Amino acid sequence: MSDASENKRYLALSGGVGGAKLALGLTHVLSPEQLQIVVNTGDDFEHLGLTICPDLDTLLYTLSGLANPKTGWGRASETNTFMKSLEALGGDTWFFLGDGDLALHVERSQRLRAGQTLSEVTAMLAKKLGVTVPIFPMTDDIVRTVVDTPDGPLPFQHYFVRDQCAPTALGFQFTGAEDASPHPEFSAALQASNLDAIFICPSNPFVSVDPILALPGIREFLGTQHAPLIAVSPIIGGSALKGPAAKMMAEMGLDVSAVSVAQHYGTLLDGFVLDQTDAALEADVRALGPEVLVTNTVMTSLDDRIKLARDVIEFSEMLQKA
Amino acid sequence: MSDASENKRYLALSGGVGGAKLALGLTHVLSPEQLQIVVNTGDDFEHLGLTICPDLDTLLYTLSGLANPKTGWGRASETNTFMKSLEALGGDTWFFLGDGDLALHVERSQRLRAGQTLSEVTAMLAKKLGVTVPIFPMTDDIVRTVVDTPDGPLPFQHYFVRDQCAPTALGFQFTGAEDASPHPEFSAALQASNLDAIFICPSNPFVSVDPILALPGIREFLGTQHAPLIAVSPIIGGSALKGPAAKMMAEMGLDVSAVSVAQHYGTLLDGFVLDQTDAALEADVRALGPEVLVTNTVMTSLDDRIKLARDVIEFSEMLQKA
Repeated sequence: MSDASENKRYLALSGGVGGAKLALGLTHVLSPEQLQIVVNTGDDFEHLGLTICPDLDTLLYTLSGLANPKTGWGRASETNTFMKSLEALGGDTWFFLGDGDLALHVERSQRLRAGQTLSEVTAMLAKKLGVTVPIFPMTDDIVRTVVDTPDGPLPFQHYFVRDQCAPTALGFQFTGAEDASPHPEFSAALQASNLDAIFICPSNPFVSVDPILALPGIREFLGTQHAPLIAVSPIIGGSALKGPAAKMMAEMGLDVSAVSVAQHYGTLLDGFVLDQTDAALEADVRALGPEVLVTNTVMTSLDDRIKLARDVIEFSEMLQKA
Repeated sequence: MSDASENKRYLALSGGVGGAKLALGLTHVLSPEQLQIVVNTGDDFEHLGLTICPDLDTLLYTLSGLANPKTGWGRASETNTFMKSLEALGGDTWFFLGDGDLALHVERSQRLRAGQTLSEVTAMLAKKLGVTVPIFPMTDDIVRTVVDTPDGPLPFQHYFVRDQCAPTALGFQFTGAEDASPHPEFSAALQASNLDAIFICPSNPFVSVDPILALPGIREFLGTQHAPLIAVSPIIGGSALKGPAAKMMAEMGLDVSAVSVAQHYGTLLDGFVLDQTDAALEADVRALGPEVLVTNTVMTSLDDRIKLARDVIEFSEMLQKA
């Protein structure tokens, strides 16, 4: 089994809740020296004078055991006195911030304002929360996902949280991406000779993974890296377990199917992981190029997360030998 | 009784907890058209990336009925999830910020950053909290009280909260005061012909009232205004009910006595209010110039606050006729 091979090195690309589930599984199978997690920051935004990084926070909370198991984001054992008070003051309350969660945003925002990088702040927060696996933002520069809608461009969190994904998504922009530098450890990992696999976690391809792929050089590095790139489909049985991925696909005229996800990543893929529900799609995906693993990708329990982590690692070993 | 005289106009100068008690009493006796409250901002500071205005907040909470009756500052029905979370992240926890209180600081800070004045923000907060009497900061400019200690200058909240007033106070500086503009309504009130009295609430003379008096023109306006200026002693029976006023007096070589307070305000005073405990000091204060009212100034109940408010208003009417 792969976890016995201490020299193996893996890189995981993740968005929020779905990605964090597989990332948690991977941390149970791999040592902190074997795994690096690169997190989307296109969802980040400035709100109430604070810099909020939803995907990074979901990773931090999930891996530290602080996450709210009901929502997948935010904290368990949370209070909402701040929001009630803010509402009474007429403040912006469309984005829920729990009292304990707020401490993270306040501490991060003041450190960023004092000149620290997002990586430095993230590393500090991870350390304080007892997260030992390296987690880093895809970039320390500011990249912001914008959703093109019939009424014009909408900042991502306005689309996602404030407007509850109601507007039609015509397309996406990743403002700042073309001038952003990928996190140095991200670039280094992609150019390393000892990388064993790259996993694209089951995150939204359009707004969680594409911002990462939009950074200068990343597609090229992925294309030339010898380690297999494996994506886990976030679309299962024609719908997304969470979030607007399926709705977006329909609105952009794509078949709402795991096949469309594989098509979306195209020639970058060496392997693709289909849920057992979608076993019938195996041939269609193979026809696009990648090898296919069919397994259970619905991660309800911690065991499911660990099982899928073991599956994708084993799949990557098979692809390496092929 | 004075509250029947609708044309009367009063101005109260206030620091935090002690001042807010008398201010609350005044709001029960006077209409919002009859009273203006000018609040010290020398205690304000920047903390965790937020602008915190302790005296303004104490006034807002006291007058809106939200104040914590045990402390006199902060909110009743408060939770502390933020602080516990911040502590776990290694943040600065020496200044307690309740979860509900935090909303006020976050909302204010983002509005200030967006270019609103402290007055505008204070007026908005007061309106939202249902406070109808006009409360304004002594200035919209930044004035910061600094305590001179044997180990050098200390920002006020570091002295007051972080170091629990332990350092010896050698003197005080009000950074920015000489270049600050008094709030326009404050200046206007002091130059108005229909002002009936100015009350200096029982606040710390050195760090709550002196910053107000240090603003350009204020001492001159007070000296030329025909309305009587009346100070209520915060020193009762040789000690302060709250805060470091008595300790400061001792450290600066002053007698710890209400007489020293009267001496401190000097020729500005037309009237001085002594607690009944200090009735024996009446002659000493009179010898300094002002008329003296001896009454109960210990405000335990709301009735005490209202009673003292009526007393000082009546005293001012007597001084006007004199």
